[in-house]
Amino acid sequence: MLTHFDAAGQAHMVDVSDKPDTRRVAVAEARVEMKPETLAYVLEGTSTKGDVLGVARVAGIMAAKRTPDLIPLCHPLALTRVALELTPQIETASVLIRATVATSGQTGVEMEALTAASVAALTVYDMLKAVEKGMIVTGIRLLHKDGGKSGSYDADKAGDVGR
Amino acid sequence: MLTHFDAAGQAHMVDVSDKPDTRRVAVAEARVEMKPETLAYVLEGTSTKGDVLGVARVAGIMAAKRTPDLIPLCHPLALTRVALELTPQIETASVLIRATVATSGQTGVEMEALTAASVAALTVYDMLKAVEKGMIVTGIRLLHKDGGKSGSYDADKAGDVGR
Amino acid sequence: MLTHFDAAGQAHMVDVSDKPDTRRVAVAEARVEMKPETLAYVLEGTSTKGDVLGVARVAGIMAAKRTPDLIPLCHPLALTRVALELTPQIETASVLIRATVATSGQTGVEMEALTAASVAALTVYDMLKAVEKGMIVTGIRLLHKDGGKSGSYDADKAGDVGR
Amino acid sequence: MLTHFDAAGQAHMVDVSDKPDTRRVAVAEARVEMKPETLAYVLEGTSTKGDVLGVARVAGIMAAKRTPDLIPLCHPLALTRVALELTPQIETASVLIRATVATSGQTGVEMEALTAASVAALTVYDMLKAVEKGMIVTGIRLLHKDGGKSGSYDADKAGDVGR
Amino acid sequence: MLTHFDAAGQAHMVDVSDKPDTRRVAVAEARVEMKPETLAYVLEGTSTKGDVLGVARVAGIMAAKRTPDLIPLCHPLALTRVALELTPQIETASVLIRATVATSGQTGVEMEALTAASVAALTVYDMLKAVEKGMIVTGIRLLHKDGGKSGSYDADKAGDVGR
Amino acid sequence: MLTHFDAAGQAHMVDVSDKPDTRRVAVAEARVEMKPETLAYVLEGTSTKGDVLGVARVAGIMAAKRTPDLIPLCHPLALTRVALELTPQIETASVLIRATVATSGQTGVEMEALTAASVAALTVYDMLKAVEKGMIVTGIRLLHKDGGKSGSYDADKAGDVGR
Repeated sequence: MLTHFDAAGQAHMVDVSDKPDTRRVAVAEARVEMKPETLAYVLEGTSTKGDVLGVARVAGIMAAKRTPDLIPLCHPLALTRVALELTPQIETASVLIRATVATSGQTGVEMEALTAASVAALTVYDMLKAVEKGMIVTGIRLLHKDGGKSGSYDADKAGDVGR
Repeated sequence: MLTHFDAAGQAHMVDVSDKPDTRRVAVAEARVEMKPETLAYVLEGTSTKGDVLGVARVAGIMAAKRTPDLIPLCHPLALTRVALELTPQIETASVLIRATVATSGQTGVEMEALTAASVAALTVYDMLKAVEKGMIVTGIRLLHKDGGKSGSYDADKAGDVGR
Repeated sequence: MLTHFDAAGQAHMVDVSDKPDTRRVAVAEARVEMKPETLAYVLEGTSTKGDVLGVARVAGIMAAKRTPDLIPLCHPLALTRVALELTPQIETASVLIRATVATSGQTGVEMEALTAASVAALTVYDMLKAVEKGMIVTGIRLLHKDGGKSGSYDADKAGDVGR
Repeated sequence: MLTHFDAAGQAHMVDVSDKPDTRRVAVAEARVEMKPETLAYVLEGTSTKGDVLGVARVAGIMAAKRTPDLIPLCHPLALTRVALELTPQIETASVLIRATVATSGQTGVEMEALTAASVAALTVYDMLKAVEKGMIVTGIRLLHKDGGKSGSYDADKAGDVGR
Repeated sequence: MLTHFDAAGQAHMVDVSDKPDTRRVAVAEARVEMKPETLAYVLEGTSTKGDVLGVARVAGIMAAKRTPDLIPLCHPLALTRVALELTPQIETASVLIRATVATSGQTGVEMEALTAASVAALTVYDMLKAVEKGMIVTGIRLLHKDGGKSGSYDADKAGDVGR
Repeated sequence: MLTHFDAAGQAHMVDVSDKPDTRRVAVAEARVEMKPETLAYVLEGTSTKGDVLGVARVAGIMAAKRTPDLIPLCHPLALTRVALELTPQIETASVLIRATVATSGQTGVEMEALTAASVAALTVYDMLKAVEKGMIVTGIRLLHKDGGKSGSYDADKAGDVGR
């Protein structure tokens, strides 16, 4: 059953009024694939030429807070932590982004983590598109979640990920 | 050179004051990969059980308008068109999203199209995550752009996409 | 006494710091009056020609979350439920909108319910204005509230509604 | 035909790229009906006890600017004028709100005027709800529009308003 | 140590998940310096010619609620009180602004109070700039905070204010 | 005369519909005064320990775009340039912020430049407040504007700045 629709098939923001506040964490990932020459700008940038990853990190943190404005059926939540790691990977010619979001609330923060990672990835794209328009953002997925009635989830152990 | 940084390596919103207003279009794509069982909900949903794609389409259109709030160095623009196509693909067990954005302005709308496609994809994820947390958003990329000094871009013909 | 002004007559966001968190619900209503020919588009739309009510429902849900951005003295709240029912009524040639909002917080959610209903009504207007500009949004009112020190309110039983 | 849906019945933000920029104006109205005792607070308030109408006016002006964030298929526009008149009417025990919005753009500003009037009305409700929860916002309608290909519209002369 | 950066020097929204909810208050101040002739408009305005301070007060209250959208590493919080005092001071030819913000949450509201005072000051500037562009906003500072592990702070007693 | 009020003293967003689009620039300044020990963190930060100025720069750029959401009577504008310089000054133990904003529109961008400088200053405060709560933001003023009917303004030459 899709909980975001009622019995008549109409979208709603699910009632979580009776759920207790629990500590919840979610970790999500995204990857920006690019040419090695493009990645070179990122690597230089973190030193002196323009901090692509620093700007993208701020964008991702701010986007986590905008999640309920973007995802229609997402509950507004008082986030208690947002952190992003952006790692340039020479071997895969990509930037790997990992976003961690926490709250103490009545619903999970999966969408906040996914939104943070996605917007950070789009910001990386924006800052580098002058040198390569063909970059691809890929692998946006939930790595881990904890807390709430449905318990933990780990992408690596999940039976529901077959790809 | 990364135009989003000045000579000292500091991020700025590039000066486009002297660019003429021209008609600009951008088309971007995203894909949400899921299990066939999950896609079945989407297929049913468009009939009676809850319109996943309809909600995601609205979210994508609204997100296009929020792009300058999300992408730090993006210029605010008066968009003249936003359209999203969301196509469930049984053979690949995925939803393919295509966003088209137009403006008559001084900068391109690539980021608006990419943001629209990405947020629509995240919304699909949100609405289906109760049945599958392992879905992956993938292949977010610019398919086509037109207008402006740098001219047209087509992903299929582009020398800069080697992956 | 108008609680939204202090003793000197200056607007302020009332201090609710000492109020306990309680479960609160509010239900509000709005109606969009139109010609029968216009309503016909809504009725068709829910099948194949364009889902007016589906788009308006999403707009109403998202607007509930924007209430503190719109209503100056409204407290920001973590909403725990937002649901909208939009019912086309052939006999009155109108769309009746009912919004239910819940929270577990220190103030009520009347304004959130009223804002959700109003924005859904305006969205119905927007989508149909190409065929009829003379539609009227009317009857925006609080039907019911529950929770908080002031207790329950029911429009039907209320002594303070004399119209 | 509903222009906000494409041939397949899918919502989109209509393409106005080829429309010329023209001067456009729209005037909309809303009314907040209340008890005479409640209106008395408004009348006093404009002198020393708390300026209900002043706060509502600011809320309406700011809401006009948020219209594209609220109404999903509304184009973002550079508004060139927003003005609100709020008139307490003793004979009808109500506050009458009239919003005028102008732009020089490719689409009309009907929704901006309607949104400004509606949010001002909701703000009046918010500030007075401590003394009367049974107030009703009514008569939200377009009074006049000018500019654009579809030309002028006047509620009083319109054949399409039969109520 | 700057808590807004992790051990690797990367900005993050600090983890406050394990902090208890406590009642927190912050008071901040700003001053808009102007010519006596300009202040005369403010003094008149509060009577009949246009309520500069009333508009600025509403702007400050609304800005407090937007703080997490503006200050990148600020936690979103459910504010329980926002109040602004704006005092025209003839002897210093300035408007003094004092903002008080309260919450019951896991982090303090210093930034909310500072943002409210700053935006109110900028709004005063905006409304008067037609008569004097040379106004200066000055003295934006935290006067007082209370609550949370770090305890109280009073600007007057603080060892860390040497100016 | 205060243009932000009409003849009856009511706030409005001034009608600029008949003004031509012209190229407009505004430069504004703000200063964050702190102890030398606090400034030391900023100076280190730009190298390896946490880039205070980089985060504040992004916050200022994004705030310029939010100006019409914050300043009630400010017109929404399509900004064509936003740049911020943040300079740590050892001799005055302060960070000096200079914001430059440009547009090609019907009204000036003074408020956008002032808002960008102010929010960047508040962000500097936020990131350093763990080490010094007594910092003061001061000297927020318009340095220069160009374009529009009222012509140029230079703070240094202005007769209206006597302080």
